Amino acid sequence: MRKIHVIGIGAGDPDQLTLQAVKALKSTDVFFILDKGAEKDDLVQLRRDLLGAHRADGAFRVVEAPDPARDREAGGADYSPAVVDWRSRRADIYERMIADELGADECGAFLVWGDPALYDSTLGILEEVLGRGAVAFSYDVVPGISSVSSLAAKHRTGLNRVARPVQITTGRRLADGGFPEGVDDVVVMLDAHQAFRQYQGGVGGDMYIYWGAYIGTADEILVSGPLDEAAPRIEALRAEARERKGWIMDTYLLRRNLG
Amino acid sequence: MRKIHVIGIGAGDPDQLTLQAVKALKSTDVFFILDKGAEKDDLVQLRRDLLGAHRADGAFRVVEAPDPARDREAGGADYSPAVVDWRSRRADIYERMIADELGADECGAFLVWGDPALYDSTLGILEEVLGRGAVAFSYDVVPGISSVSSLAAKHRTGLNRVARPVQITTGRRLADGGFPEGVDDVVVMLDAHQAFRQYQGGVGGDMYIYWGAYIGTADEILVSGPLDEAAPRIEALRAEARERKGWIMDTYLLRRNLG
Ligand SMILES: C[S@@+](CC[C@H](N)C(=O)[O-])C[C@H]1O[C@@H](n2cnc3c(N)ncnc32)[C@H](O)[C@@H]1O
Ligand SMILES: C[S@@+](CC[C@H](N)C(=O)[O-])C[C@H]1O[C@@H](n2cnc3c(N)ncnc32)[C@H](O)[C@@H]1O
Repeated sequence: MRKIHVIGIGAGDPDQLTLQAVKALKSTDVFFILDKGAEKDDLVQLRRDLLGAHRADGAFRVVEAPDPARDREAGGADYSPAVVDWRSRRADIYERMIADELGADECGAFLVWGDPALYDSTLGILEEVLGRGAVAFSYDVVPGISSVSSLAAKHRTGLNRVARPVQITTGRRLADGGFPEGVDDVVVMLDAHQAFRQYQGGVGGDMYIYWGAYIGTADEILVSGPLDEAAPRIEALRAEARERKGWIMDTYLLRRNLG
Repeated sequence: MRKIHVIGIGAGDPDQLTLQAVKALKSTDVFFILDKGAEKDDLVQLRRDLLGAHRADGAFRVVEAPDPARDREAGGADYSPAVVDWRSRRADIYERMIADELGADECGAFLVWGDPALYDSTLGILEEVLGRGAVAFSYDVVPGISSVSSLAAKHRTGLNRVARPVQITTGRRLADGGFPEGVDDVVVMLDAHQAFRQYQGGVGGDMYIYWGAYIGTADEILVSGPLDEAAPRIEALRAEARERKGWIMDTYLLRRNLG
């Protein structure tokens, strides 16, 4: 029976790999890499570096396929027909790669950015492939350090305050739905429009922000402070970095002062 | 200047240690271990095992102190005067351990269960010690795999659904505040009273649960299913395991069916 590891590789720092992930890498025959286009070359390169570092034996194959195009701003976080269609095209690619490239007794792996449990489509797509019934395999999941954990560690802060909840959400949700009910600590991912700006000037309460871009990589930028002071700095740094690199990934914790 | 690493060690499986954590372990002179009493002996043992596995050199010291007693059910998730007092007694202990046992150019470490960013008091206590001004040190944080990531990986599920938020909260909050507003995926930690039971029979909608106890350890128990089917099974397994081991740690994801 074919076997597949879904391996969380951490969110940028190659040392965020767990020992379990290293073992899974070492037991893999075929790595499947989806090429997400020029702007994400750096991310594909990190995967290649991990293989170079931990598989000096060279006894593995890499199968690459182009990722079907999609509006990047949707960022995996949209449930529109366009995204449903994108998922099913992606499932086609996964199914073909597994059927054609993975031998009956071999072990394949997908290297997933951060933690496979957070805003990642790999598990959903594998379930879709299995559901179709055309190709059979078993799979397991190796948890990874998410960009959320990484953000908190770099800022040396907890995500929750004592006895209180924390919510993880998307930029679009924060922009459309407002500050979530009943929580004062909100982590925002996939935010192409800096939804935090709407809380400047005391809107929604006294806010503090912990922000990070390209966390764990050589390009890492961190800013924290009272929202009104930090927001203009974040905007400027973000625009400049995005311009320079051609793409950006950033995450932040928006914290309402409990007074 | 004294230096301290706050190292997330994962939530049970020693292979959840990251390469970064291994490096931090290797650069540590003094490990501070708070002994939480008989029921947590296993957890202290895991820390000793990690040191045995990664510090064969033996070139380190271990400093143990008894953890000040506290109502275990509060589980670090209470903001009552009792807990504030407990934190300050704990800060006394940290301050004394650092001042007395860590040389001026040495590096100390606290090995934190799971991820230091989730329901853990170490960072808050270190800030309190620094704030007092009696002992100076710098510190950094190494993120760890949380029990939340671990739960999701074992059940091979995402925490959020596409484009939707996830909230992480405590059993007490779920019991007192009800199912949080605006989210359909809720992760519950520190739940001594199985607050999920109140949602049986369709209360709050059609629910599904992913539950795990002692995740990543030899005692691991996993249950998932529609809440009405799974809840009685979880109750029985939980009571039996808690009886047998004398303590339990469990976490679950409660998911409302979107229909
Ligand atoms: C499709 S999601 C994948 C998240 C990933 N599974 C994780 O656990 O971090 C992509 C989003 O993750 C966040 N992200 C991922 N890596 C990051 C990094 N190194 N620095 C800052 N944010 C990051 C950004 O919010 C980005 O929009
Ligand atoms: C004080 S909190 C610490 C959480 C930890 N910092 C983390 O990242 O997992 C303790 C709670 O974490 C959860 N927990 C920790 N380890 C666990 C494990 N191995 N299995 C299940 N739940 C666990 C339980 O909900 C427990 O009540």
